[in-house]
Amino acid sequence: MACSKYEYVKHFENASTLLKNTFLVVRIDGHSFHRFTKIHNYRKPNDPRGINLMNACAIEVMKEFNDIILAYGQSDEYSFVFPRETALYGRREAKIETNLVSLFTSAFVFKWKDYFEDTELQSLPSFDARCVLYPTAKNLRDYLSWRQADCHINNLYNTAFWELVQNPSSLKTEQEAESILKLTDSGGKNELLFQFGINYNKLDPMYRKGTTISRESVLVEETSKNTGEIVKRKRKILTPLYVDIIGEEFWKERPHLIKE
Amino acid sequence: MACSKYEYVKHFENASTLLKNTFLVVRIDGHSFHRFTKIHNYRKPNDPRGINLMNACAIEVMKEFNDIILAYGQSDEYSFVFPRETALYGRREAKIETNLVSLFTSAFVFKWKDYFEDTELQSLPSFDARCVLYPTAKNLRDYLSWRQADCHINNLYNTAFWELVQNPSSLKTEQEAESILKLTDSGGKNELLFQFGINYNKLDPMYRKGTTISRESVLVEETSKNTGEIVKRKRKILTPLYVDIIGEEFWKERPHLIKE
Amino acid sequence: MACSKYEYVKHFENASTLLKNTFLVVRIDGHSFHRFTKIHNYRKPNDPRGINLMNACAIEVMKEFNDIILAYGQSDEYSFVFPRETALYGRREAKIETNLVSLFTSAFVFKWKDYFEDTELQSLPSFDARCVLYPTAKNLRDYLSWRQADCHINNLYNTAFWELVQNPSSLKTEQEAESILKLTDSGGKNELLFQFGINYNKLDPMYRKGTTISRESVLVEETSKNTGEIVKRKRKILTPLYVDIIGEEFWKERPHLIKE
Amino acid sequence: MACSKYEYVKHFENASTLLKNTFLVVRIDGHSFHRFTKIHNYRKPNDPRGINLMNACAIEVMKEFNDIILAYGQSDEYSFVFPRETALYGRREAKIETNLVSLFTSAFVFKWKDYFEDTELQSLPSFDARCVLYPTAKNLRDYLSWRQADCHINNLYNTAFWELVQNPSSLKTEQEAESILKLTDSGGKNELLFQFGINYNKLDPMYRKGTTISRESVLVEETSKNTGEIVKRKRKILTPLYVDIIGEEFWKERPHLIKE
Repeated sequence: MACSKYEYVKHFENASTLLKNTFLVVRIDGHSFHRFTKIHNYRKPNDPRGINLMNACAIEVMKEFNDIILAYGQSDEYSFVFPRETALYGRREAKIETNLVSLFTSAFVFKWKDYFEDTELQSLPSFDARCVLYPTAKNLRDYLSWRQADCHINNLYNTAFWELVQNPSSLKTEQEAESILKLTDSGGKNELLFQFGINYNKLDPMYRKGTTISRESVLVEETSKNTGEIVKRKRKILTPLYVDIIGEEFWKERPHLIKE
Repeated sequence: MACSKYEYVKHFENASTLLKNTFLVVRIDGHSFHRFTKIHNYRKPNDPRGINLMNACAIEVMKEFNDIILAYGQSDEYSFVFPRETALYGRREAKIETNLVSLFTSAFVFKWKDYFEDTELQSLPSFDARCVLYPTAKNLRDYLSWRQADCHINNLYNTAFWELVQNPSSLKTEQEAESILKLTDSGGKNELLFQFGINYNKLDPMYRKGTTISRESVLVEETSKNTGEIVKRKRKILTPLYVDIIGEEFWKERPHLIKE
Repeated sequence: MACSKYEYVKHFENASTLLKNTFLVVRIDGHSFHRFTKIHNYRKPNDPRGINLMNACAIEVMKEFNDIILAYGQSDEYSFVFPRETALYGRREAKIETNLVSLFTSAFVFKWKDYFEDTELQSLPSFDARCVLYPTAKNLRDYLSWRQADCHINNLYNTAFWELVQNPSSLKTEQEAESILKLTDSGGKNELLFQFGINYNKLDPMYRKGTTISRESVLVEETSKNTGEIVKRKRKILTPLYVDIIGEEFWKERPHLIKE
Repeated sequence: MACSKYEYVKHFENASTLLKNTFLVVRIDGHSFHRFTKIHNYRKPNDPRGINLMNACAIEVMKEFNDIILAYGQSDEYSFVFPRETALYGRREAKIETNLVSLFTSAFVFKWKDYFEDTELQSLPSFDARCVLYPTAKNLRDYLSWRQADCHINNLYNTAFWELVQNPSSLKTEQEAESILKLTDSGGKNELLFQFGINYNKLDPMYRKGTTISRESVLVEETSKNTGEIVKRKRKILTPLYVDIIGEEFWKERPHLIKE
């Protein structure tokens, strides 16, 4: 039962490779998460357990694929940014996106119980993933801005929506809330929230900004191997940040992240 | 903070689609499973817990993606066969392979405890996946034969290897076992096993043949909705089979599976 | 001035290869031929000089790329069919389509004066080309039927159109002719031609069927190298045929052309 | 004979598009030009008729595809550079490369007699073409440097080779010349030429540098439409240049050509 006679079928594999010297973004997206969050009673408009779980998964991915520069997550999606020069899996598209999404999913199920202690998994969560290439630093920055602007727009909408539905002084149906919001612009939504006593800009930035994970220089207390004393050392630690990444400030403070 | 200014970056996505009217195989492969099985003390040469877990994951995949005709698994890999006419996700390659591998991984972690009761997961299992197209039924059959021949070759080797290492009358080191087997052909390995009292062809076909999952017509006892009586009905049930799929018999009995 | 420092740029080339064991069609199409035929006073609705020139170019292509099974041409387009097993240029898409279209164009300019004796070339003719893969013999036959049906539809329209415009008893403007034909179906166009004394089905099949080029067994008179006598021998000769290729007859007589 | 029944085959076309915002180079290469130049008695090591013909073809291509920034030619090849933002044919790879190579070939055959007056075309010249993407200005500059360094290396070799073969004081066979040059480095080749009375660096830069075609501001005498007087006006004219494009000077003088 020799293999050789059948082995020719191997040559039907046709792996496409990603253009060199371009920034690579791998974005994963939740599959049917509308349904998944309903089944598992996610709190609305934001469930910090869900966000923290997603962030923990992203950190696992960044530990394993350590040439990822930065990750940005919001809602049921996460984007991972590789530098121009990454040679991961010979830049084979399928290898990269399937390994990444598989590890993320693995972490999601494994860590579920750490974040949703009282809630058993009722259905299998899954994600898709795609590779997108950006040839310039500007294109990459614009990509990240796009995702963060999307976070803002959706979060403002969702915050207003669920306030209309859940606030005891409102108690609209979901359809009514939808109708009301269809006609209000961004300013109108802010005002509506204000009437509920909510200053949107004071809400937790974790919800408003999404999560950016970067290797930040942090002073860490360690036991010196030589002296046995406890010393403080600067270490690069994967750190979730809830900050603006559209403006210049974040990037000026971290000039090493994206070089032209 | 309008999205529109950044939205142009969306057009850098470039999804490749798979040629129409070809058989599609999605094969997933364990990532660093040599290490993973060591950490989790898989029994050698075969661990039925591991095989049954893989099979359970494949069944989850086939339930969700119900136009999969057939799946074939062995070792740390699983191949899923879609018919020529599948229109899954508009035949977009990345969508198909990432969704599939993600669901498989999700099931693997979720069901782990059902098969490895006493063993906690120590590290995150993950898989890669690839799409391969076959234009003819013959190419597809040859693909499946290739994987089953590979199963046979590896299993014969592994069975001999671990007998040399583990059998109390042998107790070779792994290096010694490797050296011995390097010089023996298929017949030699059968003979070697015979000296340990093992007739290779009598070993569990689950190990020798791998697992083929097909929707088999099965008589099922059901409670009739009309009469409340228990009746027997023919149902198509996803069934793991441990049989030869290289020869004609399997296919002659299931002519609906692969049409030219 | 060593090359080596710059040679890395070579690795940005990313040649895509065509799936194995599929029928390959390369179709070339005239670039702006509406304008080109106007400038060079092509006769309407059909100019046999133009058709014969296209056919001569196709024959040059088939002489050079001798694993082409068959070519089919009509209007300003030509399709070349390669067998499943072709290994031309390692099945690299760009290599195949650019070499083919370049040779076709070269022949077109070179042979122009043989067909358009009194007309100087006033502008540069050019063509584009594309590769299309068909996984089954049926798909390939349907492709060829599609092109021949297209030939029929366009030729019936064009014949009626130019009769309305050019026939001394009609002398419609082009706009008027267009308006009239917009409202007539296939039967109506046949009837309209009949009123001009034309039986469409009796028109030259070169116009109605397009040109199929195949290597036909032909009795050829040759001088025997041994005896010096003139003898008749069967040779495979590239032959333009003006026949139906939608029905079964053509293919039944040439079973070697397309094997499943 | 409706088309509709067969039209589904159209959906097997699968045009790949080129990543946005990257520099695009289309390079055409002569097919079997070693043989072609032999048949047509090209002068060795360089035939100005052949070079000028290639340049004239490149100019035709740049007239038609007017967003080409620059072209660089040497030997039997020509590279055409499109800017990052080109939207030619929706950046469809096959459309771009086949149209370009077809027009170049068309011009080559059409203009042949203008450059090779006494030599009839004996065989059909043809070319292949490929698209290559460069994400940064540096990569693009390095590509052009690579081709010009290649021109230098080949031209130095060929000049020495044909001097050994053709110089009445040498008259080596081609094999002998090859053996001699195998052992000499760049300095050795310069010295060898010096012994034949040739200062390589004084040879016509058209041979040593290849041809760069750029739209240069040129003072052109024109008849004014208003006054009927002859006036001098600055016009952008496609101009062949035989200059160094590896160093900075060329680019500093033309900062509009490549922007980061």
